[in-house]
Amino acid sequence: MLSRFKQTELWLPGISVDCVIFGFHEDQLKVLLLKFQNTRVWSLAGGFVGVDEDVDQAAARVLLERTGLSDIYLEQFYTFGDLARNDRAAEEHRGVNAAMGSLDNDLSWMAKRYITIGYYALVDYSKVMVNPGEFSDAAEWVDIVAMPHLFLDHNKIVNKALEALRLSLDEKLVAFNLLGETFTMSDIQMVYETILGKKLVRTNFQRKMLSLDILERIEKKFTGGAHKAPYLYRLKS
Amino acid sequence: MLSRFKQTELWLPGISVDCVIFGFHEDQLKVLLLKFQNTRVWSLAGGFVGVDEDVDQAAARVLLERTGLSDIYLEQFYTFGDLARNDRAAEEHRGVNAAMGSLDNDLSWMAKRYITIGYYALVDYSKVMVNPGEFSDAAEWVDIVAMPHLFLDHNKIVNKALEALRLSLDEKLVAFNLLGETFTMSDIQMVYETILGKKLVRTNFQRKMLSLDILERIEKKFTGGAHKAPYLYRLKS
Repeated sequence: MLSRFKQTELWLPGISVDCVIFGFHEDQLKVLLLKFQNTRVWSLAGGFVGVDEDVDQAAARVLLERTGLSDIYLEQFYTFGDLARNDRAAEEHRGVNAAMGSLDNDLSWMAKRYITIGYYALVDYSKVMVNPGEFSDAAEWVDIVAMPHLFLDHNKIVNKALEALRLSLDEKLVAFNLLGETFTMSDIQMVYETILGKKLVRTNFQRKMLSLDILERIEKKFTGGAHKAPYLYRLKS
Repeated sequence: MLSRFKQTELWLPGISVDCVIFGFHEDQLKVLLLKFQNTRVWSLAGGFVGVDEDVDQAAARVLLERTGLSDIYLEQFYTFGDLARNDRAAEEHRGVNAAMGSLDNDLSWMAKRYITIGYYALVDYSKVMVNPGEFSDAAEWVDIVAMPHLFLDHNKIVNKALEALRLSLDEKLVAFNLLGETFTMSDIQMVYETILGKKLVRTNFQRKMLSLDILERIEKKFTGGAHKAPYLYRLKS
């Protein structure tokens, strides 16, 4: 099953990509993990780079092959190139290999040093369908605060991706992908608080959002009740 | 002279690092460029990754070998992996090679596809000494707004590094490396304005800086004059 990866003329040597797919819904932030077939080894959706594709194309293809997800904007965030990152590869691969032994006994090509290029994306996990690909027998959205031990340095990759996601909230406006066309200030604040993992002061948050000059206030939300209805906003085009 | 790069067992195949060294002094922002020996080809300080070193270590070693600079904090910012980035490599290398022909005629190893990992740093260029290494016959600080055509996609790498530097000003506080232990709000604003390439409104800038909660106001600057002396600040430890 892994035999196409032995055709070394098809792949760049020593390079891989790993995708950290953050899933948000209501006030939950999760990460998409895959379990190698017949093992208890959980990992990110990763793979190799073809000799004839851009690294960005490889990331999109790998994500599709391993999870069924497509048309998702992947943001490159960091490249992991420590010598030691593969230290446990042989051992961990042996674990995988033992379980998959009948299928493929030679995983030595996989235990070499790899530099991996990390990508992240943020999706509403209630709106996407995940299909584990040929290497996995399970795919699961796992809460960011309850991550199991992952393959190799994948826990470190998740942490670095979370850091990058948090840093880019204001600059790249990724959070707005999760909201509908119109939203209240509370809707935005809830997304920010979940991703940042902390409560924010309402007045400060509102002032900061408005100072970014990206929002357009459109109308009063109609509620019919006695309370003051919140304003609705949309992103300026 | 380039012969050690032909010892392919010493280097990771297809991987390089490139360093964008931003130099700041007073209100000037420049980039350190190197000229390949006996050519007019300008490039960033780049090199390869040893099989026995972390990618971060490779970047520091390459910077030292090619510019003489050491003890500089290099921030990894992006990895360039487009298939097309080496499209012009053969042609541009032939230019380099023709001029360096007597030294080394076979640069074919160099014209293969390389994925390059970009690092940037920010230094006060009046305080560092640059020594072009064995491959270059000149090193120059070139104004960011007057960059010449660079080798391969190095102009794109510089632009992406500048974008990363600007995005990280607030988060990583790199600008404060350029200031002394104490500074006025105007000193900080000047660094920000130069790096961002635009004027900032004094009151807004001051409010933003103070809201970051990283500065400690220490004392009035003594001027002896009649005008109100500005406050001095330092970074909170």
